[in-house]
Amino acid sequence: MKPIEVSHIARLLNHGPTTLITSSHADKRNIMAAAWVCALDFNPAKVTVVIDSKTYTRELMEAEGTFAINLPCVQQIEMVKQVGAISGRDLPGTDKFAEYGIATFAAHKISAPLVEGCVGWLECKIISEPHNQNTYDLFIAEVVAAHADERVFSEGRWHFDDHDALRTVHHIAGGVFFATGQQC
Amino acid sequence: MKPIEVSHIARLLNHGPTTLITSSHADKRNIMAAAWVCALDFNPAKVTVVIDSKTYTRELMEAEGTFAINLPCVQQIEMVKQVGAISGRDLPGTDKFAEYGIATFAAHKISAPLVEGCVGWLECKIISEPHNQNTYDLFIAEVVAAHADERVFSEGRWHFDDHDALRTVHHIAGGVFFATGQQC
Repeated sequence: MKPIEVSHIARLLNHGPTTLITSSHADKRNIMAAAWVCALDFNPAKVTVVIDSKTYTRELMEAEGTFAINLPCVQQIEMVKQVGAISGRDLPGTDKFAEYGIATFAAHKISAPLVEGCVGWLECKIISEPHNQNTYDLFIAEVVAAHADERVFSEGRWHFDDHDALRTVHHIAGGVFFATGQQC
Repeated sequence: MKPIEVSHIARLLNHGPTTLITSSHADKRNIMAAAWVCALDFNPAKVTVVIDSKTYTRELMEAEGTFAINLPCVQQIEMVKQVGAISGRDLPGTDKFAEYGIATFAAHKISAPLVEGCVGWLECKIISEPHNQNTYDLFIAEVVAAHADERVFSEGRWHFDDHDALRTVHHIAGGVFFATGQQC
């Protein structure tokens, strides 16, 4: 895991991978799958994420003002499908991390947990835009720190050639995903 | 080429493909490559696109209020690189379509030309949000019509298995692209 310089952060998202959004507030934390995540600016790096108002992840991220974007890979696909299929509100007495045995580690600048085994992580601070949030479920955030697995992201670029299990994933519909493919 | 029902339009973009944005106004037209395009809502279908204020495509799309998102495929990759590397402003007396021999056909509900040989097309009408446009170069648009190549998009889903040349593409950085890969 290696820190990413700010001018390269957008390159983590340029190719449109599906993400896991994590958030925490007080002693609560949650994780959800999100495909509608996009780069917005280079420096300072900004992103957009679309998060439904009914989600528990959103309640925590709005309370805390921060969240993390984790980039899962092919070898985590069953976990991605699991966390995308159930709400954290429906697990009384536990949370999704415990329920599915998802290991995490501490972020550098925010409270949200980062997911072990992912290949990229973006620590995000919400830029308050109430009209976008309330009208479109659209959040704009500044990326205050970012990291990647240097086996597959180095010199500011993804290189998946020798690491099929570490390829990022792209949601199509209904729990079906494609891996990032060959260079063309 | 088949029309896409509104509830399936977001599925054209869920997996994060790189796009070609086309726009036209009066007798002018332009085309540019854009990776920062994302689904925003299901029904009515909405999208976000990030378009730099210096681009000619943006000048035309703001003047007209509409634009098209074309989804290019592997067999068009050289053309995608070409239109992404030069501004339409730098081609006096001609345009990018003529310069690179890019064939187009008429959209159903907007003036922007659609690019032949692409595998998906979204006809978009800008929802005026001046703060987002001026502060973030971020546009929100409603998709007023959408179509796809039914060889690779049918029953509301992409199916690339037998059509490697028709796989969508994902920009990484610096003119390097990956194809959409295998189901996982």
